[in-house]
Amino acid sequence: MTGKPSAPSRLAMVPFVSVADMMRLVHAIGIETVLSDLAVYIEQDFLRWELFDKTPRIASHSPNGVIELMPTSDGEVYGFKYVNGHPKNTSEGLQTVTAFGLLADVSNGYPVLLSEMTILTALRTAAMSALAAKYLAPAGAKTMALIGNGAQCEFQALAFRTICGIQNLRFYDIDRGATEKAMRNLGQTGLHLTACDSPEDAVAGAEIITTCTADKQYATILTDNMVGSGVHINAIGGDCPGKTELHRDVLLRSDIFVEYPEQTRIEGEIQQLPADHKVTELWKVFSGGAAGRRDKRQITLFDSVGFAVEDFSALRYIRDMLPKTGHYLDLDMLADPDDPRDLYGMVMRAAAKTTTMKQ
Amino acid sequence: MTGKPSAPSRLAMVPFVSVADMMRLVHAIGIETVLSDLAVYIEQDFLRWELFDKTPRIASHSPNGVIELMPTSDGEVYGFKYVNGHPKNTSEGLQTVTAFGLLADVSNGYPVLLSEMTILTALRTAAMSALAAKYLAPAGAKTMALIGNGAQCEFQALAFRTICGIQNLRFYDIDRGATEKAMRNLGQTGLHLTACDSPEDAVAGAEIITTCTADKQYATILTDNMVGSGVHINAIGGDCPGKTELHRDVLLRSDIFVEYPEQTRIEGEIQQLPADHKVTELWKVFSGGAAGRRDKRQITLFDSVGFAVEDFSALRYIRDMLPKTGHYLDLDMLADPDDPRDLYGMVMRAAAKTTTMKQ
Repeated sequence: MTGKPSAPSRLAMVPFVSVADMMRLVHAIGIETVLSDLAVYIEQDFLRWELFDKTPRIASHSPNGVIELMPTSDGEVYGFKYVNGHPKNTSEGLQTVTAFGLLADVSNGYPVLLSEMTILTALRTAAMSALAAKYLAPAGAKTMALIGNGAQCEFQALAFRTICGIQNLRFYDIDRGATEKAMRNLGQTGLHLTACDSPEDAVAGAEIITTCTADKQYATILTDNMVGSGVHINAIGGDCPGKTELHRDVLLRSDIFVEYPEQTRIEGEIQQLPADHKVTELWKVFSGGAAGRRDKRQITLFDSVGFAVEDFSALRYIRDMLPKTGHYLDLDMLADPDDPRDLYGMVMRAAAKTTTMKQ
Repeated sequence: MTGKPSAPSRLAMVPFVSVADMMRLVHAIGIETVLSDLAVYIEQDFLRWELFDKTPRIASHSPNGVIELMPTSDGEVYGFKYVNGHPKNTSEGLQTVTAFGLLADVSNGYPVLLSEMTILTALRTAAMSALAAKYLAPAGAKTMALIGNGAQCEFQALAFRTICGIQNLRFYDIDRGATEKAMRNLGQTGLHLTACDSPEDAVAGAEIITTCTADKQYATILTDNMVGSGVHINAIGGDCPGKTELHRDVLLRSDIFVEYPEQTRIEGEIQQLPADHKVTELWKVFSGGAAGRRDKRQITLFDSVGFAVEDFSALRYIRDMLPKTGHYLDLDMLADPDDPRDLYGMVMRAAAKTTTMKQ
């Protein structure tokens, strides 16, 4: 019961990247570099797809929303993300989606990174979209429609500029204020920005159509007549059961590409289609085992829902950046007794530190 | 791109209880009070058992061990625990088990507590054991055998003293050093301690037998001839597939009580028995819907594996104690833009803070 506890050892400490640290990291590296780096990390992991432990996310549903755990492992590193989805949060000044994630060493089970993932998910989602478009969008595409100008919008814009060479953006949102916010945020980037009065106006001349609306149940953001031949559709917003953005007829005219079919059939646009409707897994496209875009008239559709491997890639990237940027805090998260059998003794020897209680 | 980011709001901060803070909390309240409080919280939650979302843990197995996520929810609060089990860790000076946990508000998905759970799991496991024994052990039991004197041992000893009135402890471990460690740690508690030379010696005269050995695969710590009529067996160590402590014949003579049969049949001692072998759920005993101990000659067995609801109760207790003890740190874990749609703007406005990069 006497003596001072010694400081926790290196192994007992888990580097933690807070929201403030994530923003510092993004600025230290540069947001467009982060986006293209993330695309590289995601592509690397998709190229070793079969190595990963894959499982649809574990969801806990409630009347207001859902809380999910998304675990995966490559056999050496284990990762998971905690993420919620609560569409009504926005009306109370809260984020619809908040997230954090963790990496651990598979060989001993010790966590090695804890990170905010609200910002990181926004970044990896945009990087994933642009990476898919690199394989699927028409060659030389310069113009993208962005329908839905909420929290994901600007990240998409920058990822498509950096990774796909997009120069012109055509914005539409049912809330004009959201469009104005996005155009203000992107005003100094050198991108050519156009606010549009309707979704039909927004898609005019666009080779890529990105839909990222948030809280409509079975909405129809894109109808069949709006989608001309040869475009690539990047459908972000349809990402949980009962939430879709595209008319079924659009799906039937498209070649559909997905991350992980078992999950996308539950959560993606293709929940509108029979369970045996043909889709192509993106990892096969990246590795050359399946065709991406084959001709100029083909409509390609990335039915994006977000998969655990992408979060794994993003966390792996952040971990690799820590020694370079130094933006993290060591958390005393793991008990580390000198003798692993003597957990009780460690607790008791800490008594000297403090025994006061606030009233 | 100008202006300083404002400080994160209250909602964006998550109280974090580090290992050091958990030890401070335990000392501020007193370890035996914590143990009996935890038993109260666990009992409360078991009494509303049917309200909980229950699922067997989600395990990621590897050659060296397992990493698990254990989620649950009572409809208002969601909780999960991350826990690993790596038996070989001890030989490298690492904990076999490390853990942390989280509570979140179901209504908006925002995390409300992050806590170390290596120490907290040790505490709740002991509280759960003693709570079960309160219903199952022979009335007036004063003597407990403790076979396996590792990290869980002293917590069991104190929980059984506080909750069940145990006064005499009989220790055995294949490693005499572990027994000496436990007896040294408990030397000032007023408990009557006896080191024994064999498991047979340890169980002599004991009304309760606690087995908490760690890393044997299908070990036989208790054989049939060692278990006399009327005892209560508190079997802690058999807690994953391929890991048991009791001879099958002991099970066949016992009335078996479990936390959550779906999980215990996979992980507990009863993995040795047919899937339809009769077991009694503890929540039914606590609520009076099923009998606990019925007579003096009956052998009762708590086949403990640890269930998510117990972690939920433990986290709920820690959360309730935070305002009293003040031992926590606010973590900036959730992005909190003034306008939820303007995540990008929040990131960009943080640019002023720092843009330097370490070499």
